[in-house]
Amino acid sequence: MALDEPVLAELIRVLKARKAADPRTSYVASLYVRGVDAILKKIGEEATELVIAAKNGDARQLLHETADLWFHTLVLLTHQELELEQVLAELKARFGRSGLEEKAARQT
Amino acid sequence: MALDEPVLAELIRVLKARKAADPRTSYVASLYVRGVDAILKKIGEEATELVIAAKNGDARQLLHETADLWFHTLVLLTHQELELEQVLAELKARFGRSGLEEKAARQT
Amino acid sequence: MALDEPVLAELIRVLKARKAADPRTSYVASLYVRGVDAILKKIGEEATELVIAAKNGDARQLLHETADLWFHTLVLLTHQELELEQVLAELKARFGRSGLEEKAARQT
Amino acid sequence: MALDEPVLAELIRVLKARKAADPRTSYVASLYVRGVDAILKKIGEEATELVIAAKNGDARQLLHETADLWFHTLVLLTHQELELEQVLAELKARFGRSGLEEKAARQT
Repeated sequence: MALDEPVLAELIRVLKARKAADPRTSYVASLYVRGVDAILKKIGEEATELVIAAKNGDARQLLHETADLWFHTLVLLTHQELELEQVLAELKARFGRSGLEEKAARQT
Repeated sequence: MALDEPVLAELIRVLKARKAADPRTSYVASLYVRGVDAILKKIGEEATELVIAAKNGDARQLLHETADLWFHTLVLLTHQELELEQVLAELKARFGRSGLEEKAARQT
Repeated sequence: MALDEPVLAELIRVLKARKAADPRTSYVASLYVRGVDAILKKIGEEATELVIAAKNGDARQLLHETADLWFHTLVLLTHQELELEQVLAELKARFGRSGLEEKAARQT
Repeated sequence: MALDEPVLAELIRVLKARKAADPRTSYVASLYVRGVDAILKKIGEEATELVIAAKNGDARQLLHETADLWFHTLVLLTHQELELEQVLAELKARFGRSGLEEKAARQT
């Protein structure tokens, strides 16, 4: 499965390239060097900030925090040598898997 | 900006259609009815489960939890009448915004 | 250091006793059996619910979620054979450690 | 209900006194000034760090993060004009409330 979304494809290309970057000048390279715990802390932080932004009813902030959360999950995937396509395949499999969803799908 | 990734585009189409579905037969419709707090609780849960999966070094579980986390952020966006394209625009803006990133980009 | 707070002391006594309880009839024993990941998921859930309760400005709910969060951190400590007194010693050490805090303390 | 645990009682006394402290010299006063969102972000961060420490099997780090999490929940309670005694009352009420727990209690 190829990733057809150009923004995500380009972002992932950059995140992979950052593996060769200098951690003193690249934020992403500095996360890779600090390791998985540093990346996971960022994901926990961004998830909390997303919750707060949603509760504040601040659409602009919510979009910003959602972008931050997706960004750091992509950093994690890249760090772990995993591909977004694998996540998308998982999402795709889900459409048909749940009887509950299937039943609702027939109604809509 | 049009969303070119077919899996995400189809998922979002389904999530929008679920607004008219019966909450007794559709998990997503039941989340919409329970409201933003219920969706945010799921996002908090999935973020924690992603952290645990990553620490377990379980790639399959990590892909599964990442899919769950993205799924529920898309449920939230749809519930809040926001578009994934707005998140992608935010991600795109970020490539050029950070001097740190730009500098690293020139190196790679 | 002995724990002088009777509610916490009694709660911890019960949590320790639950190690010998039947997981089919004791919620705490069922958490122990399911292991550290199950306890950590609960802590992540309760932390998110506390954030939501605080944002809702719902004092009753906030007290409830704070109790839930503290409860599950005590379950974790007990599961890991750690003592609350060790956490309290850590908190105590902090009063004097930070110059920032000490300076503020002299002012108040 | 009086709080009998001297470490917690003293910590709460200090946290209350910090309401009159200078945010430039007191970390806690700076959190109060930045408001509830800043405190909640810290709670989200500390919860994630606790999960990571537990998964690392690092008892010292786990005690440290648990202290950090409890510390920031006490900052939140104080900021919200709530008392730890109210949380303890909630915890106490829980011992007798759950039939599941009561049944297990009779066994141990």
